[in-house]
Amino acid sequence: MDTLMKVFDKAIESRLDRRCTFVALGGGVIGDMCGYAAASYLRGVSFIQIPTTVMAQVDSSVGGKTGINHRLGKNLIGAFYQPQCVLVDTDTLNTLPDRELASGLAEVIKYGLIRDAEFFEWQEQNMHKLMARDPRAFAYAIKRSCENKAEVVSLDEKESGLRATLNLGHTFGHAIETGFGYGQWLHGEAVAAGMVMAVDMSYRLGWIDDSIVKRVHNILQQAKLPTAPPDTMTVEMFKSIMAVDKKVADGLLRLILLKGPLGNCVFTGDYDRKALDDTLYAFCKS
Amino acid sequence: MDTLMKVFDKAIESRLDRRCTFVALGGGVIGDMCGYAAASYLRGVSFIQIPTTVMAQVDSSVGGKTGINHRLGKNLIGAFYQPQCVLVDTDTLNTLPDRELASGLAEVIKYGLIRDAEFFEWQEQNMHKLMARDPRAFAYAIKRSCENKAEVVSLDEKESGLRATLNLGHTFGHAIETGFGYGQWLHGEAVAAGMVMAVDMSYRLGWIDDSIVKRVHNILQQAKLPTAPPDTMTVEMFKSIMAVDKKVADGLLRLILLKGPLGNCVFTGDYDRKALDDTLYAFCKS
Repeated sequence: MDTLMKVFDKAIESRLDRRCTFVALGGGVIGDMCGYAAASYLRGVSFIQIPTTVMAQVDSSVGGKTGINHRLGKNLIGAFYQPQCVLVDTDTLNTLPDRELASGLAEVIKYGLIRDAEFFEWQEQNMHKLMARDPRAFAYAIKRSCENKAEVVSLDEKESGLRATLNLGHTFGHAIETGFGYGQWLHGEAVAAGMVMAVDMSYRLGWIDDSIVKRVHNILQQAKLPTAPPDTMTVEMFKSIMAVDKKVADGLLRLILLKGPLGNCVFTGDYDRKALDDTLYAFCKS
Repeated sequence: MDTLMKVFDKAIESRLDRRCTFVALGGGVIGDMCGYAAASYLRGVSFIQIPTTVMAQVDSSVGGKTGINHRLGKNLIGAFYQPQCVLVDTDTLNTLPDRELASGLAEVIKYGLIRDAEFFEWQEQNMHKLMARDPRAFAYAIKRSCENKAEVVSLDEKESGLRATLNLGHTFGHAIETGFGYGQWLHGEAVAAGMVMAVDMSYRLGWIDDSIVKRVHNILQQAKLPTAPPDTMTVEMFKSIMAVDKKVADGLLRLILLKGPLGNCVFTGDYDRKALDDTLYAFCKS
């Protein structure tokens, strides 16, 4: 919020008028904040996203979700506001640290799991190229990810249902980010662990077979991503933090879970509560 | 901004989910802030306006402009966000202080000037009833004002041109509010003085005849509203503050000015700069 205010101060002091354009050059936090600032400054000015991380290129820069974090939770304050354009230059990845790179791959893997089995299979065969920063492999992974996201968002911009499926692993993941402390784990690392938990729960519910569980573990390990939450996370931490998730409606926590063959998922509050409890106890020491 | 943060804190601590509804019960500042909070909380929840001042009932609650003030200017941060409904109960005016009542009448008078000569004439005949708080007269004035505003907003929600005409007197008025200090004058008082200045400038440009100038003075005096800026306002203060107005585009200040018979106005940057200077010097001692 303080940084957002600095953006407003600078814009006002510089007397930027309604015809100005804000440019978000950076990772997801920059894009989210800059987008929200653009949405709010003079009640809305143009903005352009130039994402410089894999995470921002394959996910946060596309779809028009903008916002800032609150000490009590992520992405609780913001706006739906579309950029005039998103410019992705894969050269910006040349200087991206390995952990940041892997973090973005968690979202790439997510698209395969929720709606694009063929893309998941491509990733299984090409993860070594992505880890070696092969530019052609990256260009393909980013393009296909953006296509998946754009398709979902164009069908459901304001998240009445379908769009929520983009949050596979994010409810558990947000709980990890909040409980473990921001900055300890990168977003994609928390999402990776969260996806493992969501997949584990889907299996407990009998909705997927164990081959999917194994393939998810394998691909995340190839991408050097976590496959379990940090040791310090407790069942109680997960429960209390997930209770303020945006996907809670009428007190009921809806989750994105896999169901059926690879590439299929559901967004639902209609699941056995015991499977959620069992999952939390399986992944937490207390 | 601090108050806005308190609203977010409370909403998050209370675990309000996306199906909640924010209710703005109060005057314009409450409505604007609550609307912006509703627009931003979880990226948008429902809200209802229950305006309790004339100003809010005839103006700010209708049209979906929301926002908060910044120390460097009014309404620079906000969103276009429509309420689910606006509930106007004229009984709430029973306890409204006289000055607040008159302040709201400035906006009522504005609608007559910019687009509804018949309504202006009705006001000239019925201002004594409004000043005596006649409920039937008030119900009519509020309804007709809202109809005028709704018509303009429905034709131009995002203010590409027509909607700007609702700001007759507001550019000068905002300068007065900022320069004189917030809270010294009520918004409608500043707008009243601003309208006199805009009308004076229109006359200097030869765009209206002097009978309109006189009628505007008369009706504002009947409503016990100011007809000139405070003595402490200087030409330099007006100029520097108006330079950051949202209606500046490409460095050019566009103004709403009357042109032609009563009930007609233009929103334009195409006017003789000298007329603006002359107006400022005519109303300021230095």
